[in-house]
Order: sequence, then C-alpha cells, then structure tokens
Amino acid sequence: MVPFATRLHHRVQELGTRVCLGIDPRPALHRSTDPAQFDGDPAKAARAVVVYFRQIIDATADLVACYKPQTAFFEALGIPGLIALAQLQADIRDRGVPLLTDAKRGDLDSTAAAYASTYLGDGVFASDALTVNPYLGVDSLLPFTDRALESGRGVFVLVRTSNPGGSDFQELRDATGTSVAEHVARRVAELGEEAALVGATDPAGYGHVHAVVGATLPAEQICRFRELMPRSILLLPGYGTQGGTAISAAAAFDRHGLGALVNASRSLTYFGFEADHATEARAATMRMRDSINSQLAG
Amino acid sequence: MVPFATRLHHRVQELGTRVCLGIDPRPALHRSTDPAQFDGDPAKAARAVVVYFRQIIDATADLVACYKPQTAFFEALGIPGLIALAQLQADIRDRGVPLLTDAKRGDLDSTAAAYASTYLGDGVFASDALTVNPYLGVDSLLPFTDRALESGRGVFVLVRTSNPGGSDFQELRDATGTSVAEHVARRVAELGEEAALVGATDPAGYGHVHAVVGATLPAEQICRFRELMPRSILLLPGYGTQGGTAISAAAAFDRHGLGALVNASRSLTYFGFEADHATEARAATMRMRDSINSQLAG
Repeated sequence: MVPFATRLHHRVQELGTRVCLGIDPRPALHRSTDPAQFDGDPAKAARAVVVYFRQIIDATADLVACYKPQTAFFEALGIPGLIALAQLQADIRDRGVPLLTDAKRGDLDSTAAAYASTYLGDGVFASDALTVNPYLGVDSLLPFTDRALESGRGVFVLVRTSNPGGSDFQELRDATGTSVAEHVARRVAELGEEAALVGATDPAGYGHVHAVVGATLPAEQICRFRELMPRSILLLPGYGTQGGTAISAAAAFDRHGLGALVNASRSLTYFGFEADHATEARAATMRMRDSINSQLAG
Repeated sequence: MVPFATRLHHRVQELGTRVCLGIDPRPALHRSTDPAQFDGDPAKAARAVVVYFRQIIDATADLVACYKPQTAFFEALGIPGLIALAQLQADIRDRGVPLLTDAKRGDLDSTAAAYASTYLGDGVFASDALTVNPYLGVDSLLPFTDRALESGRGVFVLVRTSNPGGSDFQELRDATGTSVAEHVARRVAELGEEAALVGATDPAGYGHVHAVVGATLPAEQICRFRELMPRSILLLPGYGTQGGTAISAAAAFDRHGLGALVNASRSLTYFGFEADHATEARAATMRMRDSINSQLAG
C-alpha cells in the first residue's frame, strides 16, 4: 500500500487543507425527542451518533486532511457504540479519506501486537493510523511501528500533550536538562529512521512514526519538537476549545507547509440543539482550514 | 458499595489466595477442528473463547483473588470479541469475584471520563477496577480516581512495568535522582489519601488508587514502591512466563500478607492442545497460590 504519509500529504496538497476533524460523539449534545437524551438506551444513542456524524462527514469530506474518531466515546456506548465506530470507520475508508483512530493504546509484546492487529490490520476497526502511549517503553511501541511499516500505516506516539497536567511527568528533566517528552521524541525519531532505510518515506521525507504535540504549547516548544522529529508528522490537538491558536500551530509545519495536522473536535461538530449541524460543520471546518493556511502563507 | 479494597481483602483472607488470573484469549492456542484455527471468522473464535474461559472460571473461582481480562485480545476479534468480553465480565460479576479489567486507558478530561464511565460505571463492561496509564499527567487520572472513589471501585495506575523497555522512560531520573516511576508513585500516594479523608479505606488502610509494579523487578525495588504507596494494592504482572518469582513478589505484601496481587495469564490458562485445560488451570492456580503463600509464611 502507498504509505500513509504519502497519501496524507497528497491530499493536503490537492485539497489545501491541514484540518484533522475529531469525531468525539457526546449523545447529551444531540437533539432528541427523548427528554432523557437516550439515557439508558445506548443502542438508540449509537444510532443517533451514526446518523449525525455521517451527515458531518458528507458535509466536510472535501475540507479535511483526515478524520479522527476517539474510541472512548464509542466504548462508553457499549456494544452498539463499538458497532457505530466500525460503521463510521467504514464510511471514512470508503470515501478514501485517511482515518486516524485515536485510541491511545499501549501494552507489551503480544498484547501490543493484538492492539496493532485490531487497528492497523484488516478487521472492522482497521485504520490508516493509530495514536499510542509510550509510557511502557520502546519495546511496547515496536509491535505498532513494525506493523505500520509493513502495511503502509502510521503510528502517532504521544509526546507532549495539550492539557495542564501534561507537564507532570512529560516535563520531568534529567541531569542534562532533557525532558521525558524530549527523550520520547528522540526515540520516535530513531524508530522513524527505519522508513528511510527501506525507502518507505514520502517525497518530503516523512516516515511511519509520528507524534502528538499539543497545540497549546508555546511556538518555540513546538519548533523544538519539529526539529527533534524530522520524519514525523505532528498531530496538534487542543486547537480551538482548549486554546491552541493557528500561530502556535504554524510552527509545527515544515517550509513546504507539510508535516503537521491540526485537530479540532467539538468546535467543528457541536453547535447547540437549534443549529443545522452539517451546514455549521462545513462552515467551521472551512474557517479553520483557511485560518491555518493564512498563517502558513503569512 | 463496599470499597473494592475491602471486598478484595476479605476474599484474600477468607480463601487464602493472592492470585490474579489473567484472561488473555489467544485463539491460535485453542483446540479446534478448523485447520485454520478460526482464521477469518472472529465470531467463531469469540464463541470458542467464551466457552474455554467459562470452563476455566468454573474450575478456578475458589482459588483466585480476582480475574483480569485483557481488553486487547478481545478487541482483536472485533465486535464478536467485545461481546465475548462483556459475557465473561458478566460471568465474573455474577460469581461475585472481583473483576479487574486490564485496558490501560489514559486520556484527557471528558474523554477520560468517558472511559471511566465505560469501565467503572454500570454498562456492559462494568468492572470493579481498571488499569490506567499515567503519561498524560495527574489531571488525566482524576476522572478515573474520582469515579472509583464515589462508586467503590479501584484504579490501578501503571507505575513500573515488567518489560525490559520499562526502564526507557520510567527510569529516567531527575537531578535529585528520583525516577519518573517514583514521581508517578508519589502522585498515586497523594491521590490515594483522599480515600482516607472520606473514610473509604479498608481496615488495613488501603484506598481506591492502586499501582502496577512488575514482578520481574528486584525485591528491593518492589519494597521501595511498597513504602512509597502505603495505601495502594500492588498488582504484579510478569510472574511465571516473564520470569517473576514468588520471592520478589513477596516483597510487595505488607506484614499481614495483604496489599498485593500476583498475576499470571498464559501459564494458568494454556497448556497445549492435548490438555484438559480446566483441570490443568485448577492445578496450576493452586500451585501458584501455594507458592506465594509459602513465601509469605517463610
């Protein structure tokens, strides 16, 4: 398969968009005739989620670089929620839009391999890329990165997250002043070199191991991560609702305007009960696309 | 609800067992008349998994302190696998055996709250305790620990894992020589104090925030974590197959023989195609129970 970075960047250049649209279903925010908002009926809530997000996907497919469903909100609806996840993932795959599943999995050996086969294999949850957690160490990442390399997929390793508590452990520094997040970034860069060795990078040099770096960080910190991981696409969550700006986000891109994705979820998908959500989603996604692009042009 | 630590320790004392039996289904290891071992038919594999582990649960329920299903292996079987997980979890709950779901989830804010509602709420995956990953920081743990405290459940935070790569990031040390794992342990201890403040500890003083510490570590390191987290039950994976011994594991218990659980998965559940797995599981679990108990008595 054509590597994920190649497919993604082709789309970024063809459509001129760097937006990652996050799919975080919150049934309580859906309009319903049911006063209890589906409470106690996950099947009904899951069905409403599929209908709602299919309309959003229809309205935004030409405006996004990729879609990012968040597994937590689907798991919260039990078995019907997981069927809804598989349905929306199939819709996204069918449209040929890159599918980045945000599951933040992380485990050891055969357990990690089982997660990799789930999200980077050929089953119902098959995705083009997956987010993973590095706390368990490099050997816990290998089942994911190996699988990604051989199947033309991508892995996004959590490096520095966008939340206030992101500094609690990620910013602990060793005696040389290097933070945990920087150590993780270095390992991400090392793992990513393998794509270069086997000729599986895209024309701009990006490989199969990518990184999550919060859009809420100061621009100079984002620059630093950009330098540390030259073959990694940076996924920037925290744009919009969490306070990340296009100015900070711009620091994550290379001089060709490649190498990063900016994510927003709630601000692109929920607009109050009275709104026409598909129309609003299209308008909001277009504004975000243009705001990022104008920062890069500026 | 009676707090998890109280229920667990009552069982430990009543039955004299400190074994956590891990349920890690590997369809390739199941006896099947299908030469392809269910390959390509997750529904058939998931059904075989339910039958197989129900027989193991029947054969071991009086010998274990808790069961620990690993979500990765169920997710790998897609929707039928997740139904199988819900079925086995229901079986375990129905028997009144503490259910610790090993999902190693970790995310932010409302996303973490969604995971907490899934595993520490009342849905199909409801469990008595859940493993979580601390990389995202203390604010990412709070939705889990808050939910656990209010519902009488437990949270097991990954502190120091049993794999060789566990040292890559967990053993990075700050200028004072304190490791990342020790920093996490201190935060675990702080979070656990809340149970004491609201009178939700068990008679031995254990609260709602617990820790995963590899059984493969040297005994003195396990002792150190035991001291750092006086209100936390230590879950020790890596016993048996990964090389952890009862001697190391013994260091995790307090002087009353409480405060720790020793996990084994494959070595208690898979014995080759020719074996009667239920009989073998009972014998292996009994041996492990006795081996740990004799170390504590010695």
